[in-house]
Amino acid sequence: MSKLTKKRSQKAGLPPGTLIHIGEKKREVPKITILDYDETQFQERETKSIEECFPFKEKPTVSWINVEGLHQIEILERLGGCYGFHPLVLEDILNTDQRPKMEEYGEYVYIVLKMLYYDDKNSQIEAEQISLILGQNFVLSFQEGKEGDVFNLLRERIRGGKGRIRKMGADYLAYSLIDAIVDHYFIILERLGERVEFLEEELVAEPTTKTMREIHGLKREMIFLRKAVWPLREVISGLERGESSLIQENTRIYFRDVYDHTIQVIDNTEIFREMVSGMLDVYLSSVSNRLNTVMKVLTIIATIFMPLTFLAGIYGMNFKYMPELEWRWGYPLVWLIMMAIGIFMVLYFRKKKWL
Amino acid sequence: MSKLTKKRSQKAGLPPGTLIHIGEKKREVPKITILDYDETQFQERETKSIEECFPFKEKPTVSWINVEGLHQIEILERLGGCYGFHPLVLEDILNTDQRPKMEEYGEYVYIVLKMLYYDDKNSQIEAEQISLILGQNFVLSFQEGKEGDVFNLLRERIRGGKGRIRKMGADYLAYSLIDAIVDHYFIILERLGERVEFLEEELVAEPTTKTMREIHGLKREMIFLRKAVWPLREVISGLERGESSLIQENTRIYFRDVYDHTIQVIDNTEIFREMVSGMLDVYLSSVSNRLNTVMKVLTIIATIFMPLTFLAGIYGMNFKYMPELEWRWGYPLVWLIMMAIGIFMVLYFRKKKWL
Amino acid sequence: MSKLTKKRSQKAGLPPGTLIHIGEKKREVPKITILDYDETQFQERETKSIEECFPFKEKPTVSWINVEGLHQIEILERLGGCYGFHPLVLEDILNTDQRPKMEEYGEYVYIVLKMLYYDDKNSQIEAEQISLILGQNFVLSFQEGKEGDVFNLLRERIRGGKGRIRKMGADYLAYSLIDAIVDHYFIILERLGERVEFLEEELVAEPTTKTMREIHGLKREMIFLRKAVWPLREVISGLERGESSLIQENTRIYFRDVYDHTIQVIDNTEIFREMVSGMLDVYLSSVSNRLNTVMKVLTIIATIFMPLTFLAGIYGMNFKYMPELEWRWGYPLVWLIMMAIGIFMVLYFRKKKWL
Amino acid sequence: MSKLTKKRSQKAGLPPGTLIHIGEKKREVPKITILDYDETQFQERETKSIEECFPFKEKPTVSWINVEGLHQIEILERLGGCYGFHPLVLEDILNTDQRPKMEEYGEYVYIVLKMLYYDDKNSQIEAEQISLILGQNFVLSFQEGKEGDVFNLLRERIRGGKGRIRKMGADYLAYSLIDAIVDHYFIILERLGERVEFLEEELVAEPTTKTMREIHGLKREMIFLRKAVWPLREVISGLERGESSLIQENTRIYFRDVYDHTIQVIDNTEIFREMVSGMLDVYLSSVSNRLNTVMKVLTIIATIFMPLTFLAGIYGMNFKYMPELEWRWGYPLVWLIMMAIGIFMVLYFRKKKWL
Amino acid sequence: MSKLTKKRSQKAGLPPGTLIHIGEKKREVPKITILDYDETQFQERETKSIEECFPFKEKPTVSWINVEGLHQIEILERLGGCYGFHPLVLEDILNTDQRPKMEEYGEYVYIVLKMLYYDDKNSQIEAEQISLILGQNFVLSFQEGKEGDVFNLLRERIRGGKGRIRKMGADYLAYSLIDAIVDHYFIILERLGERVEFLEEELVAEPTTKTMREIHGLKREMIFLRKAVWPLREVISGLERGESSLIQENTRIYFRDVYDHTIQVIDNTEIFREMVSGMLDVYLSSVSNRLNTVMKVLTIIATIFMPLTFLAGIYGMNFKYMPELEWRWGYPLVWLIMMAIGIFMVLYFRKKKWL
Repeated sequence: MSKLTKKRSQKAGLPPGTLIHIGEKKREVPKITILDYDETQFQERETKSIEECFPFKEKPTVSWINVEGLHQIEILERLGGCYGFHPLVLEDILNTDQRPKMEEYGEYVYIVLKMLYYDDKNSQIEAEQISLILGQNFVLSFQEGKEGDVFNLLRERIRGGKGRIRKMGADYLAYSLIDAIVDHYFIILERLGERVEFLEEELVAEPTTKTMREIHGLKREMIFLRKAVWPLREVISGLERGESSLIQENTRIYFRDVYDHTIQVIDNTEIFREMVSGMLDVYLSSVSNRLNTVMKVLTIIATIFMPLTFLAGIYGMNFKYMPELEWRWGYPLVWLIMMAIGIFMVLYFRKKKWL
Repeated sequence: MSKLTKKRSQKAGLPPGTLIHIGEKKREVPKITILDYDETQFQERETKSIEECFPFKEKPTVSWINVEGLHQIEILERLGGCYGFHPLVLEDILNTDQRPKMEEYGEYVYIVLKMLYYDDKNSQIEAEQISLILGQNFVLSFQEGKEGDVFNLLRERIRGGKGRIRKMGADYLAYSLIDAIVDHYFIILERLGERVEFLEEELVAEPTTKTMREIHGLKREMIFLRKAVWPLREVISGLERGESSLIQENTRIYFRDVYDHTIQVIDNTEIFREMVSGMLDVYLSSVSNRLNTVMKVLTIIATIFMPLTFLAGIYGMNFKYMPELEWRWGYPLVWLIMMAIGIFMVLYFRKKKWL
Repeated sequence: MSKLTKKRSQKAGLPPGTLIHIGEKKREVPKITILDYDETQFQERETKSIEECFPFKEKPTVSWINVEGLHQIEILERLGGCYGFHPLVLEDILNTDQRPKMEEYGEYVYIVLKMLYYDDKNSQIEAEQISLILGQNFVLSFQEGKEGDVFNLLRERIRGGKGRIRKMGADYLAYSLIDAIVDHYFIILERLGERVEFLEEELVAEPTTKTMREIHGLKREMIFLRKAVWPLREVISGLERGESSLIQENTRIYFRDVYDHTIQVIDNTEIFREMVSGMLDVYLSSVSNRLNTVMKVLTIIATIFMPLTFLAGIYGMNFKYMPELEWRWGYPLVWLIMMAIGIFMVLYFRKKKWL
Repeated sequence: MSKLTKKRSQKAGLPPGTLIHIGEKKREVPKITILDYDETQFQERETKSIEECFPFKEKPTVSWINVEGLHQIEILERLGGCYGFHPLVLEDILNTDQRPKMEEYGEYVYIVLKMLYYDDKNSQIEAEQISLILGQNFVLSFQEGKEGDVFNLLRERIRGGKGRIRKMGADYLAYSLIDAIVDHYFIILERLGERVEFLEEELVAEPTTKTMREIHGLKREMIFLRKAVWPLREVISGLERGESSLIQENTRIYFRDVYDHTIQVIDNTEIFREMVSGMLDVYLSSVSNRLNTVMKVLTIIATIFMPLTFLAGIYGMNFKYMPELEWRWGYPLVWLIMMAIGIFMVLYFRKKKWL
Repeated sequence: MSKLTKKRSQKAGLPPGTLIHIGEKKREVPKITILDYDETQFQERETKSIEECFPFKEKPTVSWINVEGLHQIEILERLGGCYGFHPLVLEDILNTDQRPKMEEYGEYVYIVLKMLYYDDKNSQIEAEQISLILGQNFVLSFQEGKEGDVFNLLRERIRGGKGRIRKMGADYLAYSLIDAIVDHYFIILERLGERVEFLEEELVAEPTTKTMREIHGLKREMIFLRKAVWPLREVISGLERGESSLIQENTRIYFRDVYDHTIQVIDNTEIFREMVSGMLDVYLSSVSNRLNTVMKVLTIIATIFMPLTFLAGIYGMNFKYMPELEWRWGYPLVWLIMMAIGIFMVLYFRKKKWL
């Protein structure tokens, strides 16, 4: 649950633009990497001093500055000062409890997204917030600092100069980053799909209380996924409609493609939700059915043996004058009667389809 | 379930426009057929070399090039190169996990739809993705390659020159293809309707756990159907509103007609969904009712025989001084009392309407 | 159920405008009636030859041509040829599985509606599709051919020259027809209301499995009603907003009135739906309550008699040395103890409010 | 239920504008009262002849003519004739099964609302339809004729010349009437709120079948309330937006105020609905819980006494060679064993938290 | 519940603008504080005479007049008279049962919000209504008078001249107040989140009737929270879009920030609601499961001991001729048979997975 809400209360009452890191500290030392390229040249650098990033603001080549780890606030402060970002933007980057959104600031566009990972050990989705700032010829990305990200293949493409990317501007770079994030959602969906499938089979074979708990857990993962994915629709449709002049006409078609993927992720999330809620119905009805089965067994046993025990009780009475007791064939007769009763009961239950 | 999501994860991180076939390989060798016609002439050809299709790009007659089987990527690549399609379009054609959509590219319109078949053996809906590209005087269609399609009657009409089709342009051909696909949905609906009807009867007659499973299965088919049908509304309304100049004024009225059919398919899907969810309620209540019946039987038996057995137990005690045991008519008296208790109980349950 | 979907599959793949009658044949010979009138003159005629209807196309007086029975396709074909209707319109008239809709064709407006009847025998709603074509000075209506319709009072008004109708144009006639149809929906609502009321009472008095089935049946009738009524809203609001120039300014106010009625029908349908779904909850809870009652009876009986039977069993044992058996007052003492246990149990259950 | 639908069927098929009173006759003789005022003068009159109302049409002072009791149709007919109302308006006034609505007729505005009363005796909401016609300098109001209305304080204000009302025009008078009606809804809400609160307490203390019935009844009252209140939103927002020129700029702010109140009534209705549906869940779960409790008691009793009774049965057998029966301490030993079993069972159930 | 509706009935029928305090009297003597500042100067004052506030209307510096406690109506009356507020505004300030709203009056903007506190003692959310009036250079705030508010940090900032606030106008002050209120909602959300988390754990460990009641209570808090938060969206989006000229361009970006927070609060509220309703399902299914377990125990016990007791009963019969009774090994044989039956039963239940 704690992954659904974060401790924002510490910020209540502080002036807007106050820089406080909300979220977990995921890495000791922030890691800053710079990728700078155009069609002909390319350089890659890892640095510890944020000042190295300043010259790239004005350079005509496309620069991608990636900062992992947000807890050293002064890095962000100095970067923001140099590039002239609004204090609210810096505040939002540090607050890792953001809803995905896109904000247009004229000179630059600020985008917040969630990178999702599937933690196979705990069967849980984990999220890392990523902030993108798209300027005329730079993209700044800020990650919480979790080890690894979803951009390695993209980095390879830039290094190798493969595909269109080295020929296009910063807007295409921003698109590529977003595309990599959204593409990764499909991996999450596949994992969830496998769990749904597995639970469906378990439900048919032999539903237990554990099945119920897992359905409930799956439902919570769905809620979590939806929280990250739903607002995306608006974000990317905003970028696609070209609300910002920073996104050029020929890049828009690519944003339309990501938009399609987003809709598909949302569609599938909804379908999974529906299936999971259908599974709940099946679970509850199978619990009821098993209760029915149990009760039938009890009823059959009781209905057969109660009259018989009663009969045995009758002839266990100690009345002085009980003629049957004296009969030569009394005992076998009682056995016969008892068997008749038993067989009748069994036939009755068979007719009622209980057996 | 696996029909709801496909392995898209292999594409995560690759550059846009990378051609990878996502989906099942449904046929060994792709099959390419060309139908070329205008009011006066007609030719039909089946070929293996994609190059044969190139001349039809410029021919003023209407050409319909149908490609079945997508796994030989170079076919698509060469075709796309000749006709000048955007790489994203080619990528989408190969990805058979698309949501129905329509994209306008100026020179041509790209449409993705789902052909649905009802697999009677497994009582399941099966889908085959079909991509249409409508140009000035050609329609290209790409199928996954499943044996057979829904266009045979249409082909007959073109061959025979029956109806309006030979006099109209490529937009009318595109309409005819879409119409054939949507018309086929009604067949799916009829089959689902029959299953709904059958389950309703089973529900009244004698609901079993199997009924429940079938209701659940039907629900999943509904979800699947809806996934294919819902986005269609937007697709066809886009074509009808004439967002593209490729669709002429007098063809639009036909698209309005398909639009109506689409709405009707959606309507019926929703109605089926509602009916199926109503059936679930009936099922659950009938399970509860049967539990009630079972419990009543048990209670009646127990309530009649427990007091009687107790009484028999009393006179089975071995106390030295039990005057009743010595009575001459003790035994018959006990029988009388027992019968009285039994009759009273039966009357009591009859009054309570349990019998 | 079969009333929810009709066999449309026979049309799949046929060219648009193919005239095939989808639906039941409800009458042997189609019946054609002509009413022609203006403020001063009036004539009424029943005919068998469709050619008699042709002259009325150009006559300045208002003509209402009513065709009952659709299976003789050539009638429609010839009529459509003379009046110049679009083939899709003719196709839609014959397909009695239409959704209510309104289509504007410049020269004429095509409207599809459902006439609903309440079949008291089977407690079911029955539908008959009616197509209206409103032209400059004529209204053509096509009914499936079920005996009787809802227009008799309207015919009387035209014959008698009562009210406004003889002074107004064809648009007012179309309004009057639609108004008669919508007014009739209120009768359906009243019948459904009575059933809802009846079931509510049954639910309070003594709900049985039959009650459940009837609730379910009512729910299905609701779905059916809603299918016919919901799309009406859009149809009539289209007419009211005057999308067609065939509807004059002073008639629009009347369409606003029908629109109000439609909204009211929809409102009431929704209210009934809510009530019926509330009834389901009450039913299920009453089933649970009865189960509770049954189980309490069982538990009380078992809890009282099991200890007593056990006690009787104790003193039925045949141990040689059981001092109590020899006591003079052993037997009465056991009775006393048993009574004490019984009374204690009864008091205990009374305290627990089970008795 | 009959309060949800009224017998409208008698109108089916009649021409529009036919004056038929639909609803209950609530008073013998209609009562007509006239209040006429401006800033300086005031007169109040009760009359039986409708002709007395005619002069007020042209008088520049503000006149409020209130008609209670609608069954004498000729009154309305003559009034409508003099003031020149559209026949559909007169028809709607007489039909007390209207949905709240506002219709703009240029010269006048026609408004239908529902006055709601809370009938404490039957714990039911009762409705009386009121129609308002706002003209340049008059407001006509038509009530069904139920004794009493919600306007007494308003009348006092006019008589006493208190507040703004005597200085403002007819639009302000119409506002005041609507305001009085909407204000009265809050009283209904308070009563419903009290019932909700009462039921919540009952639910915690001791839910019975009666509680369920009352929840169901409350739900129905909610449906009824919502039917009257929902359409109001649109009505008043129409008046506020000043769709009619009869409502002056400075009165609009007051309509905005009523609009706020309406939204609040709707909000509260929705909140109540949610609470009531939450109560249903609590009720059902408490029924299940009690069943659990009952079953536990039964199971505990059976599990303790069945083995004991079995043991007693063993030593009640009459085998010739049963060595235990001869033992000196056999009987006490059996008692010891039985107690051990009993205590073990109790401990077991305590461990399982059933006791 | 009483916190959901307040006694508004006393106002029914009174003229608009009548000043009546609706709500609880939360403090004896109203407390009026004035904060007046611009970039260079600052004064703070607490006063009892409302007249002291009048001069600040025209002063060019930014003034914040905070009134706590509303029951002394004449204070409001005089203040309203001096500042020229519309009577409806004054009425709304006094009515503490308002829905959050924003009203534009040209010269000033009237805003109503709810301050929420979490009462740890009763685990309940408490609300205090706050009205803000934003003028050219003043902000008036009216609180119900509960001890303490959420503005202390803001006051510190103004006093200390920290941050942007002393350099900005009254619109920024209004923003800061709203921001403080919305920020405080996150604290409420955290508390609710903790309760949700706690209940989830309880649900897994050992759900009791108390758990159910707490889920229900939580649901009610959710409804309460939503009532306060939902309308906020519209309020703040109205302010952000700059409907009023009182809010300057460069302040709007801050309102966008609050708007984001509001959306996030709403998002989280909805997520909590979903989780709570999911918990209900888990609770109900765990109740059913426990019933199943109980019934299984009962059935197992009964199924094992009933046949055995019957057998014991057989050999407790007193027939004269029962050969088995005479057998030397009859008694041990019966024991053997009984053990066989018992073991068979246990194996049977183990196979059925009941044990």
